[in-house]
Amino acid sequence: MKAIVFDVFGTLVDWRSSLIHQFNELEKDLGIELPSEVLADQWRQLYAPSMDRVRRGEIPWTVLDDLHRESLVKLLNQHGIALDEATIDRVNYFWHQLEPWSDVPHGLQRLKEHTIIATLTNGNVSLMVDVARHAKLPWDMIFCAELFEHYKPDTEVYLGACRLLRLPPEEVMLCAAHNADLRAARALGMKTAFIPRRTEYGPQQSKDLEAEEAWDFVAEDLVALSERLIE
Amino acid sequence: MKAIVFDVFGTLVDWRSSLIHQFNELEKDLGIELPSEVLADQWRQLYAPSMDRVRRGEIPWTVLDDLHRESLVKLLNQHGIALDEATIDRVNYFWHQLEPWSDVPHGLQRLKEHTIIATLTNGNVSLMVDVARHAKLPWDMIFCAELFEHYKPDTEVYLGACRLLRLPPEEVMLCAAHNADLRAARALGMKTAFIPRRTEYGPQQSKDLEAEEAWDFVAEDLVALSERLIE
Repeated sequence: MKAIVFDVFGTLVDWRSSLIHQFNELEKDLGIELPSEVLADQWRQLYAPSMDRVRRGEIPWTVLDDLHRESLVKLLNQHGIALDEATIDRVNYFWHQLEPWSDVPHGLQRLKEHTIIATLTNGNVSLMVDVARHAKLPWDMIFCAELFEHYKPDTEVYLGACRLLRLPPEEVMLCAAHNADLRAARALGMKTAFIPRRTEYGPQQSKDLEAEEAWDFVAEDLVALSERLIE
Repeated sequence: MKAIVFDVFGTLVDWRSSLIHQFNELEKDLGIELPSEVLADQWRQLYAPSMDRVRRGEIPWTVLDDLHRESLVKLLNQHGIALDEATIDRVNYFWHQLEPWSDVPHGLQRLKEHTIIATLTNGNVSLMVDVARHAKLPWDMIFCAELFEHYKPDTEVYLGACRLLRLPPEEVMLCAAHNADLRAARALGMKTAFIPRRTEYGPQQSKDLEAEEAWDFVAEDLVALSERLIE
């Protein structure tokens, strides 16, 4: 194995707590009340459907920042929350400032000493650059949907990263907290590593609590994965 | 200015000394004599013409690693040097292990603390990933010809990087040791920074010894540039 590519949202960064925290800060700044947890959860619920519209060809290629903003405007309208354009931009930028799970900075650094590490994410380039700078993720490369104008789980994203690495899929491993993402990678011949993030969706999370297949590696977190890989 | 993108070959890494050193190592390993300096210089002389064939549409899109290898085979034939395929691959890989100019690691790290830093190079992704890992260049992103299937100075490369950064050209600065590269960037509205590398082509270098236009910044090296920018 020559490279590990990582899902980012949920696998490396705790988007839910980060969004809630930033909505709470916004409440204080604006002196208004916001249903922070509900907004975070409902915003994320619009994520897959918004990408599916692109994947099915219903709308032309649209980067995630713009899909996020469309979903946000819809959500704010549903809740009758009136924010000006600059504040909507500020809220949309919450996704650029997500906090990593605690094992991530050290785990990634260790893995980088032994192999190429890169993202394989639906986030666009500028979003991922900001997340990496904020969360101190030392990427060798950012591979993302935008480069291929396809969203995961379209095969173009996985195979596109392998092509740009000039590696056959068997020499590239996807690390993700989502079984479906790993299934898509395995179907193309890539190696797979599962790391559970059992509170990604909050305390009531009901899916992706465990590995659903015999993935090549299953580890509790990135540090544990690095220990398994570096022997 | 929100981001600085950098030319790599010559501006950040001393390809000539690095190639000569590696040819000299190969000589010892194989117990043969090689005209190391001549090979390095002639190989680089084939660089622009090989990309121009792509730029003019004479051959389909071809990544730099493959152009380098074609040029190398041609050059070895001209010199009557017979190497097996594995050794040719090894020599082609010399480009993946280039040494940075001495100011680069520290200068880039300082600049990264204040702005987004990325490559803007004709090297392909996997080549640039290897160079960055070898020379410890802490990129936020690798922008390169391969992502746009165009070689500099085609406008698609410069504008493609700005588009992926979601920044207007005026907010992106190209840093390069080559006046022609900066001219192409300025024509598109980008900011420009010139850093001379007066021995890039060896002691007889006759071009790019000085800034040929009033670039936005002219500095002796990356550390000096970072001092100018960070006040």
